[in-house]
Amino acid sequence: MADQIANKIYADYPPALTPEQEDYLVQTVKNWTVEHALTVRPSAAIVPEETNPTGVLATSAPVTLFPSPFPKACFQQAKSLQQIYNELYANIASDEQWLEDVLKELIAVDDFLANLWKVHLAVKEEGYVQDLSLGMFRSDYMLHAPEDAPVSLRQVEFNTISSSFGGLAYKVTDMHTHLATFPSPKQPVAYPPHPLFSSSSEKSNINTIGRPPPNEAVPTLVAGLAAAHEAYGTSRSTPDLPTCILFLVQDAERNVFDQLALSTHLHKHHNIPSFRLPVSKILAYTSIPSKDSNPARPLVYTPPSSPSTQFEVTVVYFRAFYAPTDYETPSSWAARHHLERSAAIKCPTVLLQLSGSKKVQQVLTSRPPDTDHLKAFLTEHSEATLESLRSTFAPQYSLSASQLEATSEPEGIRLALDEKSAVNHVLKPQREGGGNNIYRDNIPPFLNSIPKDQWKQYILMELIHPPSAAKNTVLRSDGQVVSGNVISELGIFGTCLWRTVPGNTVPEILHNTEGGYLLRTKGKDSDEGGVAAGFSSLDSLILYEEV
Amino acid sequence: MADQIANKIYADYPPALTPEQEDYLVQTVKNWTVEHALTVRPSAAIVPEETNPTGVLATSAPVTLFPSPFPKACFQQAKSLQQIYNELYANIASDEQWLEDVLKELIAVDDFLANLWKVHLAVKEEGYVQDLSLGMFRSDYMLHAPEDAPVSLRQVEFNTISSSFGGLAYKVTDMHTHLATFPSPKQPVAYPPHPLFSSSSEKSNINTIGRPPPNEAVPTLVAGLAAAHEAYGTSRSTPDLPTCILFLVQDAERNVFDQLALSTHLHKHHNIPSFRLPVSKILAYTSIPSKDSNPARPLVYTPPSSPSTQFEVTVVYFRAFYAPTDYETPSSWAARHHLERSAAIKCPTVLLQLSGSKKVQQVLTSRPPDTDHLKAFLTEHSEATLESLRSTFAPQYSLSASQLEATSEPEGIRLALDEKSAVNHVLKPQREGGGNNIYRDNIPPFLNSIPKDQWKQYILMELIHPPSAAKNTVLRSDGQVVSGNVISELGIFGTCLWRTVPGNTVPEILHNTEGGYLLRTKGKDSDEGGVAAGFSSLDSLILYEEV
Repeated sequence: MADQIANKIYADYPPALTPEQEDYLVQTVKNWTVEHALTVRPSAAIVPEETNPTGVLATSAPVTLFPSPFPKACFQQAKSLQQIYNELYANIASDEQWLEDVLKELIAVDDFLANLWKVHLAVKEEGYVQDLSLGMFRSDYMLHAPEDAPVSLRQVEFNTISSSFGGLAYKVTDMHTHLATFPSPKQPVAYPPHPLFSSSSEKSNINTIGRPPPNEAVPTLVAGLAAAHEAYGTSRSTPDLPTCILFLVQDAERNVFDQLALSTHLHKHHNIPSFRLPVSKILAYTSIPSKDSNPARPLVYTPPSSPSTQFEVTVVYFRAFYAPTDYETPSSWAARHHLERSAAIKCPTVLLQLSGSKKVQQVLTSRPPDTDHLKAFLTEHSEATLESLRSTFAPQYSLSASQLEATSEPEGIRLALDEKSAVNHVLKPQREGGGNNIYRDNIPPFLNSIPKDQWKQYILMELIHPPSAAKNTVLRSDGQVVSGNVISELGIFGTCLWRTVPGNTVPEILHNTEGGYLLRTKGKDSDEGGVAAGFSSLDSLILYEEV
Repeated sequence: MADQIANKIYADYPPALTPEQEDYLVQTVKNWTVEHALTVRPSAAIVPEETNPTGVLATSAPVTLFPSPFPKACFQQAKSLQQIYNELYANIASDEQWLEDVLKELIAVDDFLANLWKVHLAVKEEGYVQDLSLGMFRSDYMLHAPEDAPVSLRQVEFNTISSSFGGLAYKVTDMHTHLATFPSPKQPVAYPPHPLFSSSSEKSNINTIGRPPPNEAVPTLVAGLAAAHEAYGTSRSTPDLPTCILFLVQDAERNVFDQLALSTHLHKHHNIPSFRLPVSKILAYTSIPSKDSNPARPLVYTPPSSPSTQFEVTVVYFRAFYAPTDYETPSSWAARHHLERSAAIKCPTVLLQLSGSKKVQQVLTSRPPDTDHLKAFLTEHSEATLESLRSTFAPQYSLSASQLEATSEPEGIRLALDEKSAVNHVLKPQREGGGNNIYRDNIPPFLNSIPKDQWKQYILMELIHPPSAAKNTVLRSDGQVVSGNVISELGIFGTCLWRTVPGNTVPEILHNTEGGYLLRTKGKDSDEGGVAAGFSSLDSLILYEEV
């Protein structure tokens, strides 16, 4: 059984360290991270604000000391599906009516989704002036390794907004590669000898190349931005303005070096300037000419440091505004509307952001005799391809009594309220932002504690069973080194640029790429996590296959 | 008068900043430094040790927000002299008898110099087994701009050991270049418009290219290490061992990213592995076979993390052991002796370290009718070249009554004790390490407070008068931004590899290069300073010339 192989792999992984080995490894990692800006700004929990009032300090991003073993076939499958997933979500975001049908019940009860939908409706009424959309996606998976079946991929989430960590993930790959190969791949000094660090498989039935696969996250993501910038074309202002890309960021962002890796690459390799704009400054530093003076609605950015030098924004890249907590003032929604109605290409549009909601993910799992939405969106693809996509879906259910895809009884409600079945599930809110998942036997009492009409805000998903023996050691951002059982989540990056076609729900796809990956690894006790919050760590992978 | 030009340049430099401009500039610099590892480990004064017990935090190296204007002719002169200076110090280090004559009086009273000399004598008696020496030099200058003469270069120091900041200096150049040219050189958003940031000189009689000159410090320094590594040749161990370079570092080093820039470049571009070895671990992790087993005395490094993988050390690069404070235990001197007697190429040897003492610098200033040591060491060079070198010497004097170069009365003592002349001088200890300079009218009382036989441990040097109007703004490592009058010191990097020739005091020079620079800028109130200590800042320069 595959799970047995995965557990056998982990039986003696990572290799044990002597105190001298751990000391060398930790010291090397601590220096490597800062030397390569694999860093974050420290949280106030690590450095009190009075010690760091100007925010000048930086610290290592949380990283694993070792790459995590991962089955090669699963990695390749995830990569092979990415461009199809990109196309799927481009198609979903282009089908406003379908989205409305799927989401209307939620919109009725969820303020955040309702506000997003309102922005879309307002701009629709005025008329969109930009028919191009950019998606910078990350499809997240876990390994599912139940005792009675081969190991397989299970999709956790498809991110359509603010897909992060591409700018740091490739550095972890480089770091683990350095550790596994310095000064020579045959005799690395940082890692003790281990079959997984050796490309020779003489003494083992496991084949590996002994280091992580290359990680093209940054060039892939940046090429998406550059393609959108080029597709925007020349200035629509009178007179012409120089063009730029805006990185829309949170006011207090700790993950800034992840973002800078993209903007620096964008400038260095594509010669495209970009600026960072905190969400609170959108209305202060950007403007759109009045309809009379310029109906094309170019988005004009005025750098506060140089007001006489204005720029026209080709692409607004959202690294903020993805969660309700980003909209803290009344003007936040005005700012979102302001951007949405502009001629700038949005990454993402409101419709694309909504396409990434967990409700959509759940609806896509329905299949005959229910409506086969997946097939309807991907008419050009073979049944085999669709089956490969479907194989990554975790069984999941609406808790709505009147659902789009329902045939008869709401199975989700039955599974959620029965303690026996609940223990094998997780209850997820439809909204972005995490932090509110309800697990296992907590599900029935939780549902019974809230009004029944709120149930439809949740999706019930079958729990994923990751390889149980997985272990790793982590350098946290506070400098502590901790070891233990871990769970990893693989993200595959991709970008897609498309043009909506009037009167056609199928868009014209101009750019569709896959490249680069993120592995996030967290301690097994924690059911939630985000790397920047310090709960999970950036990781890379070492592929293996049975021979 | 040139000083007037320098002061005119500074009259409106750096340009004034609005609060928005300063905010953007400081924020950009803070992010740029960490993104490019223009960083140091924070001192305990910035982050208390209990907040950072594992040393995982990093902070911006102190940097100026603007490059400092510098006369092009002076910069070019400093560069043009570097290879001659390299040769001069290679020749000095190869003339043991001359060094002994110059230093013997000091050695008699200075424990540190005496211990160094003892190491040399002990190895000489046993016999040196390595005839190659490597110098990684930095010649430091200040601009001398008295009211009554054109601006000129004055050499402050010639560093023959642990010449630092090459690995950070080029990054400041890149940062200032970015600030001056992003998104376009014609309209940078970080710097307000200023003639010095523009390559056009239409409205000015000052010519500039509007950005700092390129800085090749890292490839230059690393090429020196690589040349020595190659010249060492194959392993002298039985059986052969793989070879490596050792970076000898202080146990608690905050300037680690400066050093890592070199070791990473060495591996990436020359494929030469190197390891960091704290001075306290020299005797634990390196060994030399007994004379019987291998008279060639290869220096064998055993990585503590991987004891089964030994390496033979081709070059020991000293980034420690330069000051008395580095020799805190009795075994420190045993460790220095251990390295000196090994077959590894030392950067530097004891003799080369001694050649960098201020006493040597002072003796080189003597000229006819006293002995012309400079001419004696550089017989192949023209009188014009020697005069160009001499023009960079600050007038300086021994305080010894029986000096090698003295004709009659000790002029230094007369100048030092007379209050009227003392105010134009600085009294410098001969030893490395700084921190003990005595200035101006403090000199006479200081000399009168110490025994007369200690006077010879000091050199009296005429004070340098840097351009008085120079100003800049600094981001300190604690995040504070401070502005004011400044003094800058220009360092030019160079490397030299040579072979001593038996029976000849003139060595065979195999590699002699110049490349890269460091500008260190400090507040005018501080007479002392070192960047890592937070008193001075890393800077770059913007060259100008009158047209």
